[in-house]
Amino acid sequence: MPPEDAVVDLLGALAYGELSAFDHLADDAGLSPDLAGRAEMSSMAALEFEHYRRIAARLGELGADPALAMAPFVAALESYHAITKPSTWLESVVKAYVGDGMAADFFREVATFVDTETGDLIRDVLVEGGRAEFAVREVKAAVAQQPAVAGRLALWARRLVGEAISQTQHVLADRDSLMLLFVQGTGDITGVAALITRITDRHAERMVALGLDS
Amino acid sequence: MPPEDAVVDLLGALAYGELSAFDHLADDAGLSPDLAGRAEMSSMAALEFEHYRRIAARLGELGADPALAMAPFVAALESYHAITKPSTWLESVVKAYVGDGMAADFFREVATFVDTETGDLIRDVLVEGGRAEFAVREVKAAVAQQPAVAGRLALWARRLVGEAISQTQHVLADRDSLMLLFVQGTGDITGVAALITRITDRHAERMVALGLDS
Repeated sequence: MPPEDAVVDLLGALAYGELSAFDHLADDAGLSPDLAGRAEMSSMAALEFEHYRRIAARLGELGADPALAMAPFVAALESYHAITKPSTWLESVVKAYVGDGMAADFFREVATFVDTETGDLIRDVLVEGGRAEFAVREVKAAVAQQPAVAGRLALWARRLVGEAISQTQHVLADRDSLMLLFVQGTGDITGVAALITRITDRHAERMVALGLDS
Repeated sequence: MPPEDAVVDLLGALAYGELSAFDHLADDAGLSPDLAGRAEMSSMAALEFEHYRRIAARLGELGADPALAMAPFVAALESYHAITKPSTWLESVVKAYVGDGMAADFFREVATFVDTETGDLIRDVLVEGGRAEFAVREVKAAVAQQPAVAGRLALWARRLVGEAISQTQHVLADRDSLMLLFVQGTGDITGVAALITRITDRHAERMVALGLDS
């Protein structure tokens, strides 16, 4: 069984992940060339906030202060967002699908290591909700008009993945409770390898869906 | 009876008001000195987006394209937000309460000039939802610590009101349908004066609540 504070740490990291995703998606919505795209990305932001609210409520039920639980993860998540700040609308669309998608996969994996109620909540708030269709539509339309865009976006996606992995490693190295949860949950090095393979496979599927896999 | 396109214009202006409020509140949340305040203002932003969604849905029911309906009002609202961009957390708090409050009062007045279904929707999405308590708490705490803040915030509130009135006049002057709705709805100059008095009174009440009326 994971120690109690590992659950608070996990929910704290996820809560700040949602709150910062809200913040950055709301910001990136301004990159949209039209009001329809802006509304769509704003809608994703609003949904992230709703998820934040549910996780913060769960932290409250566990007797934890959401602000205190999130605090240890602010620096790593803000570093990720600062380094991967989109400079175009398409970069923001790819980030919302590929970057957030990989983070969600990681949290879903770790969710299997904690109690059912917490795990169910995590799986529940991480449903993608139409984001795939939106990203695929925007990226395919742009690539059809200007094929050179594909190469640049593929490179961008690689950068997102690199930074996401790097920040995840920092967090695990800094928080003993999460590292323990992760090590106990995966069982051994074979378990770790299998987890990484599953996450990598899902990432590859997203790249195929976007047509950025070549 | 107002012409059909006045209703679409009114809902278009309100829809963009909500979408831009979402955008700017989400942005201003970053000015908060702590995560609790940031979460609170982000929550207001998410609520504005939910309101946007409902108004956009109503525009759809009326056979209007939300993006087209909003387009005529983008410039005026973005001018307002650009000129009243908060540079401190307290300025953002006062703007969210005083500026948005006055805009809401204006829309509520105009809502009495249109059909019941549209009017009910407008009144429904304009409920303040805890914003007053939040603003009063933040401002009073700051003024208690540093009394000089009060004068600066009172000046800021006056600027918000001036810009809000100025942009409203621009919109009415530009959109014949809305001007007609407003003139027909108020009836005559006495009606206009009464409406302005009601809005001014409510504004004064907010300033008293904030302790910024002296």
